Amino acid sequence: MSVTYATTEELAAMQEQLTSNLSVVWILLNSINIMLMQTGFAMLEAGAVHRKHIKSILSKNLMDCAIGTLAWWGFGYSIFTMSNEFATNKTESFAGFFLMFAFAVTCGTIASGAVVGRLRFPTYMILAFFIIGCLYPLIAGWVWSEKGFLYGRYTDVAGGVVVHGVGGVCAFVAAALIGPRNDRFDGLGTGDVVVVPSPGNSPPLQVLGALLLFCAWFSFNGVSAGLGDAEGLNAASRAMVTTLLASSAAACVGLILVRSITGYYDLGVTFNCLLAGLVSVTGNCSLIDTWAAVLIGAISAPVFIWSDRFILYKLHVDDPISASALHGVVGIYGGLCTGVFHRTEGVIHGHGDLLLVQLWGTLLIVVVSGVSVFVVLQVLRLFSPKRKLTVSAEAQLLGMDFYYHDRDIIENLTAARIREFNVR
Amino acid sequence: MSVTYATTEELAAMQEQLTSNLSVVWILLNSINIMLMQTGFAMLEAGAVHRKHIKSILSKNLMDCAIGTLAWWGFGYSIFTMSNEFATNKTESFAGFFLMFAFAVTCGTIASGAVVGRLRFPTYMILAFFIIGCLYPLIAGWVWSEKGFLYGRYTDVAGGVVVHGVGGVCAFVAAALIGPRNDRFDGLGTGDVVVVPSPGNSPPLQVLGALLLFCAWFSFNGVSAGLGDAEGLNAASRAMVTTLLASSAAACVGLILVRSITGYYDLGVTFNCLLAGLVSVTGNCSLIDTWAAVLIGAISAPVFIWSDRFILYKLHVDDPISASALHGVVGIYGGLCTGVFHRTEGVIHGHGDLLLVQLWGTLLIVVVSGVSVFVVLQVLRLFSPKRKLTVSAEAQLLGMDFYYHDRDIIENLTAARIREFNVR
Amino acid sequence: MSVTYATTEELAAMQEQLTSNLSVVWILLNSINIMLMQTGFAMLEAGAVHRKHIKSILSKNLMDCAIGTLAWWGFGYSIFTMSNEFATNKTESFAGFFLMFAFAVTCGTIASGAVVGRLRFPTYMILAFFIIGCLYPLIAGWVWSEKGFLYGRYTDVAGGVVVHGVGGVCAFVAAALIGPRNDRFDGLGTGDVVVVPSPGNSPPLQVLGALLLFCAWFSFNGVSAGLGDAEGLNAASRAMVTTLLASSAAACVGLILVRSITGYYDLGVTFNCLLAGLVSVTGNCSLIDTWAAVLIGAISAPVFIWSDRFILYKLHVDDPISASALHGVVGIYGGLCTGVFHRTEGVIHGHGDLLLVQLWGTLLIVVVSGVSVFVVLQVLRLFSPKRKLTVSAEAQLLGMDFYYHDRDIIENLTAARIREFNVR
Repeated sequence: MSVTYATTEELAAMQEQLTSNLSVVWILLNSINIMLMQTGFAMLEAGAVHRKHIKSILSKNLMDCAIGTLAWWGFGYSIFTMSNEFATNKTESFAGFFLMFAFAVTCGTIASGAVVGRLRFPTYMILAFFIIGCLYPLIAGWVWSEKGFLYGRYTDVAGGVVVHGVGGVCAFVAAALIGPRNDRFDGLGTGDVVVVPSPGNSPPLQVLGALLLFCAWFSFNGVSAGLGDAEGLNAASRAMVTTLLASSAAACVGLILVRSITGYYDLGVTFNCLLAGLVSVTGNCSLIDTWAAVLIGAISAPVFIWSDRFILYKLHVDDPISASALHGVVGIYGGLCTGVFHRTEGVIHGHGDLLLVQLWGTLLIVVVSGVSVFVVLQVLRLFSPKRKLTVSAEAQLLGMDFYYHDRDIIENLTAARIREFNVR
Repeated sequence: MSVTYATTEELAAMQEQLTSNLSVVWILLNSINIMLMQTGFAMLEAGAVHRKHIKSILSKNLMDCAIGTLAWWGFGYSIFTMSNEFATNKTESFAGFFLMFAFAVTCGTIASGAVVGRLRFPTYMILAFFIIGCLYPLIAGWVWSEKGFLYGRYTDVAGGVVVHGVGGVCAFVAAALIGPRNDRFDGLGTGDVVVVPSPGNSPPLQVLGALLLFCAWFSFNGVSAGLGDAEGLNAASRAMVTTLLASSAAACVGLILVRSITGYYDLGVTFNCLLAGLVSVTGNCSLIDTWAAVLIGAISAPVFIWSDRFILYKLHVDDPISASALHGVVGIYGGLCTGVFHRTEGVIHGHGDLLLVQLWGTLLIVVVSGVSVFVVLQVLRLFSPKRKLTVSAEAQLLGMDFYYHDRDIIENLTAARIREFNVR
Repeated sequence: MSVTYATTEELAAMQEQLTSNLSVVWILLNSINIMLMQTGFAMLEAGAVHRKHIKSILSKNLMDCAIGTLAWWGFGYSIFTMSNEFATNKTESFAGFFLMFAFAVTCGTIASGAVVGRLRFPTYMILAFFIIGCLYPLIAGWVWSEKGFLYGRYTDVAGGVVVHGVGGVCAFVAAALIGPRNDRFDGLGTGDVVVVPSPGNSPPLQVLGALLLFCAWFSFNGVSAGLGDAEGLNAASRAMVTTLLASSAAACVGLILVRSITGYYDLGVTFNCLLAGLVSVTGNCSLIDTWAAVLIGAISAPVFIWSDRFILYKLHVDDPISASALHGVVGIYGGLCTGVFHRTEGVIHGHGDLLLVQLWGTLLIVVVSGVSVFVVLQVLRLFSPKRKLTVSAEAQLLGMDFYYHDRDIIENLTAARIREFNVR
């Protein structure tokens, strides 16, 4: 019997093939986990709003994912890869298409909570369509596509700025531009403004949302840090541990801080600080030491708490789920931390170049995001009824659900009207 | 030092072994995700029913999985593989056993929502036992077992008909046979029937359930499309993208449709259309182009909405969570779409053979499912108290929970009775 | 062209490398699933307590994970591995660090529900810090670290005793030591004690929690049974199937038992029995036959039900979520089952040695856990206000939320006070 021997080339080819297969499994399963973030945001926001806006916020969370998919398929993915893959139908790119969509929709959904209780539903749909289909892919392409002009220079492992910073800036601009809910401030425009508390309707739903985000974040950061080879998986493992450490440190510091300020172990601040810790290491998770993760996370708590209060009490911008501070400010803070705490190129190791790139890169991204959302919303205003982006005062008072989402209103109708409805 | 060289055979054997290992990891992790569908169904249904039946529907969802496991272990898996693996104890088949059970229990649990609020608990248990242990494995064996007479002919990638079609048909037959809830129709039997609205008790729970199903569905379709080799993972990647596209298109179309019909952005219709899109591509996810996925999903929305209304308003069948239309009608529709949009053998490419097989295959599966559930329920009726499958009018009025599930009733008892209870 | 051939050594090295990569993917993805248990416990407990303690229990669930992370990073992992990896910063161990933390925090969080409604928040934080950072790593190190004196002798695949037994014993000792909630027993201290019912506030949240735990448990047991080689994955597959069988058998038996005792299909007992089945096979999941899993699970139901009643009605220990019986008693029961039903070394195959080791090993673990928690709590009592571990009677009556967690209390304040608050 004749025996054939395997060449080293065949061996290498096989290794590459099997590693590629493992990478695809790693990408697909993590993508599913990241899609779970949609559930997380939906629950977090549904628990945080007034009971009368629940169906409205749930509809927005469902539909920005749906409409975002079509935008991503139609042209978003093509903009991101700077190629011609409109309405892509190619087999090779499907895993990447799915993974990158999971990031895009996370960016797009961040604004939904900031505009709850007043932004018109069709306007929000167009805004989400624009963010997921145009703005996010443009910026993500700059940083992560090989043809992007920031590629290889600006450092953002999993999208601390590209995903969360952009989403947070969009949330802030939208919330500022459309104005607060009618019942959020008392005496607005006078020198004597009172912030009226706006408690959520369900702490368990909020924590459910926060913890689903927490779990999904490990996939978010892990799959960004590396793929299925030894080096990539080492980076992914490190990313997951730093993610865990930063969020835990942030929650501990936030709890102590809020206790010292208000006298209470405030649940909302605690889980928001947990999320702030997650945002703060998203851009640098695989590039830092564990002690740096603890430090970055610990500082993210006061960064979140003070910026959130500043936005609410000084700027009088009404952001019901604190997305501006949580994803925007903390995202930017995390982007700069990358330049400071990078294990080889950070300021702590005597290198300032990276921090400089992080500074102007982040600034550029923030300005482009903010300006473009501003322009889009101003244009949308022109086409809105009465040139207003918000619903009527009556709809705000009685609830978006009752006005726009509630077929169950027929519950209250007489039998005669029900009969009419049935006839249709 | 003497050196031994590796033969190409050894190389190939290693590749096969490592690919097999990756496939097992892929199967097991996806199976866990698919099991999450049990949580999804439980939350969706718990949010959709009247508050007085919550414990009842949660008990049914918990127990159909539990009793289904024992049926699957005892003989279901053996029927499915058409082998002698009763109460299987063999190591090789465990991953497959687990994966295929996750599909079986999905099929079995679909009927639970359709019979809520009136079917007796033990009767439902026996029905679930029959579907998971006998009916589903029989039909799945026909299509997916190498010995099955439809194997290699009838095409159903992930069970659009085999899982969802069968489940939906069972739901419809059961809902029709046991009759509506007492308070669902006014004037039934006369020519002038009014459908009384039956709103859910918690929109967030419903959306939580729908989104958990949405996430788990990627595993459901992905793992069915292919295993851990390059070709399999390509198919899986395609399957996940088409799944995303179809569900998103369906949600968008459904939202617009219901807005034009009722004037509201109806939340319930929206997420049900999202699920309809998922059902519609389940059978063909890895076999179609992306544009076809968008089209199939888009059409699934009106298919769902009209069939759901037809079943309720014309047939006067009371299916509280629309399982008949959602899984049954849309499942069948998806099975036919496979014959139309298949990338190589579809009608759109000039081949009619596949569609013909899909037609008679689907018909056969629907008839066998419907008839067998009809027979089982009629037999169960003979052994039921007063020959009725449903609970008493009083139990329907005051709630299944109060009558059958509520040990907490003792909450309302006097101290004397509590003492008695303690003594027991 | 010269051709180089691959040596068998190179082939073996590659196989090892690729298997190692697959193992890391397997570990990381399962770890994320296991972290989902935190969500499960939080929802289960939030649904089980009185509405007035919801924020309190949610805060405890969030923060034990956060503070536990820091303890694990600082010294817990170092104690567990019996090495010098304080505040570990090494790349090789990150995947293991993450996986083992997921187990540690599961152990630590079990006690949170047992002490709900009365234990002071800072005291609980220190207790969680101690369990996750000191007690659990010590015991886990004994059994699972190569240097541990029980390593290779005491058998506990996934922590039936090491995780759940330890957590359950801590829960029992804590619940007994701090005493019952004020409104749990009537006539305590007299010979005529009445147990006052304490129903949960949300069955859907409880079932959501139980089902998330159910899903995560497959990862918990699977990843413990084996890693990414053929043999390991065979063991993992078997572990998942036995996990499924045991939990299902337990739920079925529990349902029938409670029906025969109380006359109701009690939802709470049903899902607790499902969880009891999961606990009972955690230690032996990959080492037993499928029929043994069914038997172990079936028996775990009465073990749980009777021990839970004994603890409540005879010992008058108030454990609101039955953690003592569920994780403690059933965990110990499962540890002994390992010695009885082991496929090669069990009593059923005529070997008694393993059972003997299981007996004294379990006893040792239980005693060390119980005594150390007792000591820690007694020391903490010395430093507590008025030497009491519990909050005041008034705080128990009005709710922990109102007293300690509720910044939303300002909702009820006058505008004047709100202004004051804003000034801060």
